[in-house]
Amino acid sequence: MRNSSVTEPDSHPMNAGDGNYSYHKNSYFQKAATSVTKEKIDEAIATVLDITRFSTEALASFTIADLGCSVGPNTFIVVQNIIEAVRCKYGSQVPDFQVFFNDHTANDFNTLFTSFPPEKNYYAAGVPGSFHGRLFPESSLHFVHSSYAIHWLSRVPKELLDEGSPAWNKGRIHYTSAPENVGDAYKSQFAKDMRDFFNARGKEIVSGGLMALIMPGTQDGVPHSQVPSGVNYDLLGFSLMDMAKEGIIRESDVDSFNLPVYAPTPQEMTELVNANGCFGIERMELTAPRSKIKGLIDGQACMMHLRAGMEGIISKHFGSEIIDELFDRFLKKADDEFAERLEASFQNSTQLLVVLKRK
Amino acid sequence: MRNSSVTEPDSHPMNAGDGNYSYHKNSYFQKAATSVTKEKIDEAIATVLDITRFSTEALASFTIADLGCSVGPNTFIVVQNIIEAVRCKYGSQVPDFQVFFNDHTANDFNTLFTSFPPEKNYYAAGVPGSFHGRLFPESSLHFVHSSYAIHWLSRVPKELLDEGSPAWNKGRIHYTSAPENVGDAYKSQFAKDMRDFFNARGKEIVSGGLMALIMPGTQDGVPHSQVPSGVNYDLLGFSLMDMAKEGIIRESDVDSFNLPVYAPTPQEMTELVNANGCFGIERMELTAPRSKIKGLIDGQACMMHLRAGMEGIISKHFGSEIIDELFDRFLKKADDEFAERLEASFQNSTQLLVVLKRK
Repeated sequence: MRNSSVTEPDSHPMNAGDGNYSYHKNSYFQKAATSVTKEKIDEAIATVLDITRFSTEALASFTIADLGCSVGPNTFIVVQNIIEAVRCKYGSQVPDFQVFFNDHTANDFNTLFTSFPPEKNYYAAGVPGSFHGRLFPESSLHFVHSSYAIHWLSRVPKELLDEGSPAWNKGRIHYTSAPENVGDAYKSQFAKDMRDFFNARGKEIVSGGLMALIMPGTQDGVPHSQVPSGVNYDLLGFSLMDMAKEGIIRESDVDSFNLPVYAPTPQEMTELVNANGCFGIERMELTAPRSKIKGLIDGQACMMHLRAGMEGIISKHFGSEIIDELFDRFLKKADDEFAERLEASFQNSTQLLVVLKRK
Repeated sequence: MRNSSVTEPDSHPMNAGDGNYSYHKNSYFQKAATSVTKEKIDEAIATVLDITRFSTEALASFTIADLGCSVGPNTFIVVQNIIEAVRCKYGSQVPDFQVFFNDHTANDFNTLFTSFPPEKNYYAAGVPGSFHGRLFPESSLHFVHSSYAIHWLSRVPKELLDEGSPAWNKGRIHYTSAPENVGDAYKSQFAKDMRDFFNARGKEIVSGGLMALIMPGTQDGVPHSQVPSGVNYDLLGFSLMDMAKEGIIRESDVDSFNLPVYAPTPQEMTELVNANGCFGIERMELTAPRSKIKGLIDGQACMMHLRAGMEGIISKHFGSEIIDELFDRFLKKADDEFAERLEASFQNSTQLLVVLKRK
């Protein structure tokens, strides 16, 4: 028996509930991501999945896990898509579906549970805990999905906070527009986190089982400052530095704040998957989400999404009293100086889809 | 595939969080129940459980569900006991344990998840939904436990609210001290709920799997007004009627309020199990919990437990503004007129333990 009591890494839940700034109401960029990848996941299920490889015993039910599910509604849409694709292929050969919704213990599972679609046709369970460690018994999952979750690092690389280190990230909050040493520190933490992630999933997924990972990715040669998340993090960092210069917050607090998120290149992910050795790569590709997001991508939409996702981590560091002003400044900058750069950034290919099959 | 989207029956979650009146802090009577039954469950596992009846496949992990788990800590103690008893018998033949914590969707799962014991040696999941319907895939559970949960009816029998019915329960809030027709209406609803319960568990538990049910029970020939819950419900009903007579609440609101809880006799439970036909009875016995509860059972302790368990359902009906006064009156009555009857009631055998084995 394994002891699953390891200390949980840093967790930064999305905004809870269903208020104006909630993740529930401000995650339609992530939903667009879902629609980009839907057909590709459908295709992987149609062509790669082979349930005859699973024993009859294991197929009393088909087990799906969504890792980093947050509070919905995107997770419900994704899960329904996966179930429909499997049923489309296998019909009644798969009698029951059991779906595990996972996120950090601090996630608002009460909201998740009360938001279940009334017509859901699967048995649902919530699994609290970090996906950087073990969450499920051995060989108990047939399909693992994770969208916009594994780019969260388990912790901020400590060199970023060390004044003596070449990776000290003074005056910035991310590796966007930062020296190479800063990016390297992020890259190295991400590699460690992915080692833990693939080790755990390698144990939990049955032979022949699939895993689809969707996350922000980086195209070789495109600077991070030209992709949507990079523009947003720059805007947020500049807004914070403006507030520091006006004495509203302390500059040292900006120096010690770093967003623990990383967008790898396909090449990096390929190396990490191969280093683990448990999975074969069925798909690894970068796409541009812009065409799937309906309507205007303006400063307001970016601000709402960023606030829904990042208010928690920012409040924890700076205090919740700065939030309204910070995002007002963000919005102003986004609409004034950054409007073009923001819109252009969404044309770049920044969404990484990885489909893996457990050997 | 089954559709698990049936409308959830009435739910009355225990008081959330960990404040003074929380179930978390006021459930040590239920904990005492746990210690009475621990040795009997241990014995059932030692003598009745035979994992060689399960296929090797299914035993990649041993699956336990606690139905009506509330927010802890009792559920964690019970689960740990079951795991220790199984490991004591089978050692490393059972590699992993997966535990499903179930309660109504309105249960405070966030508190449950943040209260997990740090040293837990199992994979945990929360399953929201009513145990009167299906919650799990077919043949997916090895051990089901439920303590002080299945005595909650899925709904108040509607005859109790019907002025034209002989079961109209005017001036009372339970079948304690009520005419036989009222008790019959409760009994009939309980029988229907147990049919649903056993049908669902019959599908979910593997052949050879065990189910331990602990609940308030009734000894043939002992009036309900002489058992602890009966005394408490009388006290609560009398306190409400006093408030109605003083014009603080409306008498018609007392007439339309009924606690949806039922304590069956061993004979009734035996008939219900046999009518279902999926389970063999390994144990069916009434015990007195008094000897296991440490310290004084006084009005204060009863009031705190009743409030932790019933504040939700009372507030919903009468409004939360009456709660403090109601329980002050309850406490005064309990300490004055009812002290002896209360203490004596705990000497009666009122805890029903049922151990069943899936045929």
